Amino acid sequence: MKQAGSVGSCPTSASVAETTNFVLPNDTNTLGNLFGGRLLQWLDINSAVSAHRHCKRVVVTIAVNNVSFDRPIKLGDLVTIRSHVSRAFDTSMEVWSDVWVEDQLTGEKIKCNSAIYTFVAVDNTGRPVNVPQVVPGTEEEQKRYDGALRRRQLRLILAGRMKPEEASELKALFDR
Amino acid sequence: MKQAGSVGSCPTSASVAETTNFVLPNDTNTLGNLFGGRLLQWLDINSAVSAHRHCKRVVVTIAVNNVSFDRPIKLGDLVTIRSHVSRAFDTSMEVWSDVWVEDQLTGEKIKCNSAIYTFVAVDNTGRPVNVPQVVPGTEEEQKRYDGALRRRQLRLILAGRMKPEEASELKALFDR
Amino acid sequence: MKQAGSVGSCPTSASVAETTNFVLPNDTNTLGNLFGGRLLQWLDINSAVSAHRHCKRVVVTIAVNNVSFDRPIKLGDLVTIRSHVSRAFDTSMEVWSDVWVEDQLTGEKIKCNSAIYTFVAVDNTGRPVNVPQVVPGTEEEQKRYDGALRRRQLRLILAGRMKPEEASELKALFDR
Amino acid sequence: MKQAGSVGSCPTSASVAETTNFVLPNDTNTLGNLFGGRLLQWLDINSAVSAHRHCKRVVVTIAVNNVSFDRPIKLGDLVTIRSHVSRAFDTSMEVWSDVWVEDQLTGEKIKCNSAIYTFVAVDNTGRPVNVPQVVPGTEEEQKRYDGALRRRQLRLILAGRMKPEEASELKALFDR
Amino acid sequence: MKQAGSVGSCPTSASVAETTNFVLPNDTNTLGNLFGGRLLQWLDINSAVSAHRHCKRVVVTIAVNNVSFDRPIKLGDLVTIRSHVSRAFDTSMEVWSDVWVEDQLTGEKIKCNSAIYTFVAVDNTGRPVNVPQVVPGTEEEQKRYDGALRRRQLRLILAGRMKPEEASELKALFDR
Amino acid sequence: MKQAGSVGSCPTSASVAETTNFVLPNDTNTLGNLFGGRLLQWLDINSAVSAHRHCKRVVVTIAVNNVSFDRPIKLGDLVTIRSHVSRAFDTSMEVWSDVWVEDQLTGEKIKCNSAIYTFVAVDNTGRPVNVPQVVPGTEEEQKRYDGALRRRQLRLILAGRMKPEEASELKALFDR
Repeated sequence: MKQAGSVGSCPTSASVAETTNFVLPNDTNTLGNLFGGRLLQWLDINSAVSAHRHCKRVVVTIAVNNVSFDRPIKLGDLVTIRSHVSRAFDTSMEVWSDVWVEDQLTGEKIKCNSAIYTFVAVDNTGRPVNVPQVVPGTEEEQKRYDGALRRRQLRLILAGRMKPEEASELKALFDR
Repeated sequence: MKQAGSVGSCPTSASVAETTNFVLPNDTNTLGNLFGGRLLQWLDINSAVSAHRHCKRVVVTIAVNNVSFDRPIKLGDLVTIRSHVSRAFDTSMEVWSDVWVEDQLTGEKIKCNSAIYTFVAVDNTGRPVNVPQVVPGTEEEQKRYDGALRRRQLRLILAGRMKPEEASELKALFDR
Repeated sequence: MKQAGSVGSCPTSASVAETTNFVLPNDTNTLGNLFGGRLLQWLDINSAVSAHRHCKRVVVTIAVNNVSFDRPIKLGDLVTIRSHVSRAFDTSMEVWSDVWVEDQLTGEKIKCNSAIYTFVAVDNTGRPVNVPQVVPGTEEEQKRYDGALRRRQLRLILAGRMKPEEASELKALFDR
Repeated sequence: MKQAGSVGSCPTSASVAETTNFVLPNDTNTLGNLFGGRLLQWLDINSAVSAHRHCKRVVVTIAVNNVSFDRPIKLGDLVTIRSHVSRAFDTSMEVWSDVWVEDQLTGEKIKCNSAIYTFVAVDNTGRPVNVPQVVPGTEEEQKRYDGALRRRQLRLILAGRMKPEEASELKALFDR
Repeated sequence: MKQAGSVGSCPTSASVAETTNFVLPNDTNTLGNLFGGRLLQWLDINSAVSAHRHCKRVVVTIAVNNVSFDRPIKLGDLVTIRSHVSRAFDTSMEVWSDVWVEDQLTGEKIKCNSAIYTFVAVDNTGRPVNVPQVVPGTEEEQKRYDGALRRRQLRLILAGRMKPEEASELKALFDR
Repeated sequence: MKQAGSVGSCPTSASVAETTNFVLPNDTNTLGNLFGGRLLQWLDINSAVSAHRHCKRVVVTIAVNNVSFDRPIKLGDLVTIRSHVSRAFDTSMEVWSDVWVEDQLTGEKIKCNSAIYTFVAVDNTGRPVNVPQVVPGTEEEQKRYDGALRRRQLRLILAGRMKPEEASELKALFDR
């Protein structure tokens, strides 16, 4: 089903993708804040750019694992999304995105969201293909890399594709 | 912080919302399939309709808990999203959406995605307000109602707002 | 020109299609109400879903026969469109849509528009093909079925394809 | 309810509005033709420009009376819409639009649609206000002016606001 | 590289293209004025229509030479863009657009922008093809025709494709 | 008219803004390449982000000075826009943007466009306010800083606001 064999490895930093948008009236909900569906669309595109940079392949979204909306983003705000591939598994990649708003006067960046999407790399016929491994650099990249296995087990359990008792990483989380 | 006291209860069926769209070229990715970001936007709106019907309040997205993309949706496909509030917690509501594509010849509906979003109800000043409890009707509604507590603990752990050892429902899942 | 022979019949209820949208700033005119052109687009898509469900074929809009805008729809309103095929004629289908707004507090649905579109079913080469007859169920479905012939004669007269004296149904309307 | 008294008159030519668009992939349906809903939106805007030019007031769409789609418009086609107010009634205006496609090589304009919309002029509080009368110039403008009364009676009958026996213009059409 | 030989000539008036739009909330920036990027998109389409009408070929934008935003355009304003090909050079065409806003009460048109874009005509394989010469009619058309050579030299210098000392027309401008 | 006095200075690097987009079908013209008007919109937003980061004020586009489209960008391409303020003049800022496409297999970035926009900073009432000076760092930043005065004189001459004989920088260009 998939191509066999190793396809090397890349540092986390090689997959970083960044985008900045102004929130225009076109992007708001009836409270005058950034409409959730619009942010989800921006996150999907920026995450796909990261996944593509990691594997140099066509990539398709296979799951949104978690997006938290911690504080409202307002009309006129400057929104920056920064994504990177946190870990790769055979043909799939977990992509982590952080979202900031810049203070209009000081330029200080305030964190307001984070998001985790999963992509799979495909060839021209749509068949999954293997992707390079991720080599984390910074301490935070290592932490996200370590947690990715736990989140993947969660996703497979939620999708009914793994039994809880097989999820060794998750079991460990509760066995203390 | 929130309004005190009970605000009654509603059956799951009262919050059902449905929408159907054709996939136009405007909605596709470079493979000619429905672009993931577009589906996330449609899901956000239809889930918000369900949450609003349950509580008759302004609602805002606070999390996307899980969206799985199980099979590609193609240009020209007829996509139906059906959402309902699966469980309410004080001021927040878990909304479950199912996505089908209709076979062009037989009209048979084929399930291709499901999604879980969380909304919170707010008053005119943006403060969270209490919402009615959900009373599940069918067996499947009951099953989703039961699982919602477990998924909520997961979401709080992922957001660093709950410690794993406090997540009684989740611990039970692995303690067998 | 068209495929000969009968292609059966379907109840009106089999072609029902429903969609619900929030009116976002993106959808408004300079008075802060739903922009007419946007509603016409939503009606076109939902009507096409009904026509497709009736005949299981690719369908194309050939006429908008009547859309009335009886009351303005405001920013933040919840708009539900419900369509069904009211009658079929060889290769064309009259689709009737009703539009409601939900009262934000009580959830009561208030009727604010109705619309009549005509679609034709085509094969892969774009040639019109025959569609099943419609079998009305409720009293209202029967009334709309009965009126469709009158409206079709009107449409053909307006398009210069029928002479007024040939429009038997319409003549009867005035001959009393 | 409305402002009393005359507000003068304007020639048909004073309300002419024209717009030209290329059909981009963004505007197409799954057959690669211009999507009906998009054309309806373009027609709504261009008709509103005509109505505004006639009365110099805020105008709102109150009805789409008839739109015929006589031939498909293809990706890459150059579409020109030309609108004018064909007749005014107290506070409402009938706007007639013609749609052409230009032949890519010869530049010859081929007629492919026509559309009739009705607008009402409103003041700042949304109340209908009187508009100037229309003075037709050419023979075709006169013909459309004459037919407008008949179409208005049709619209009122369809909306259940006029009884067939009161529609003198329409009765005359069938009484021969 | 290009097709050789003459392809005739056309009067400036043959390439005139006009379009009118209302500024909707969807088109505004956070000050409630027309968003610059939206106007640039409208200008690109209307200029392309002019270029196409001049040469009856597929045309692609190769440069935006100058767009001035002299006064803000507000929500609800009626914006008219009028374009024409001012001069042709072998395979490229300079297109000049003027932008007006209409006074809401008097209908008086107030000039608020002008723009110069350059297009090239291509055949089915994307290769540049020769276009007809432009024959200016009015005094203003002649003035824009005369200035086009100067602006073309400027564009080529800015792009590093011409040395200042070769720009005879420009040198003359400063040699007085 | 404007606020008096100095408002300090910032390095060019402080205003850098970057954005990356996939070219989706929604963004293409009839040749399947990125539609010029869409790129102009992306450039406008990213340039505005740079201008805002430089001055921490609301900014409005006052001119597009030059955009070159050197090679077509195709459906599915990954487009990166990188902008920075190249020079400031009292209340206006020249913003320079570079556009790259990434090779799908090697990730190599290929330059395909550059663009120069001018913005002005305004206060809450829309009045222009002074902005900090730019301090160029790299050799290329210095070169763009030096050229900006020349381009500003060009813009003022084209707008009829400066006489050619007053444009000292430009005269020097041709006096050799």
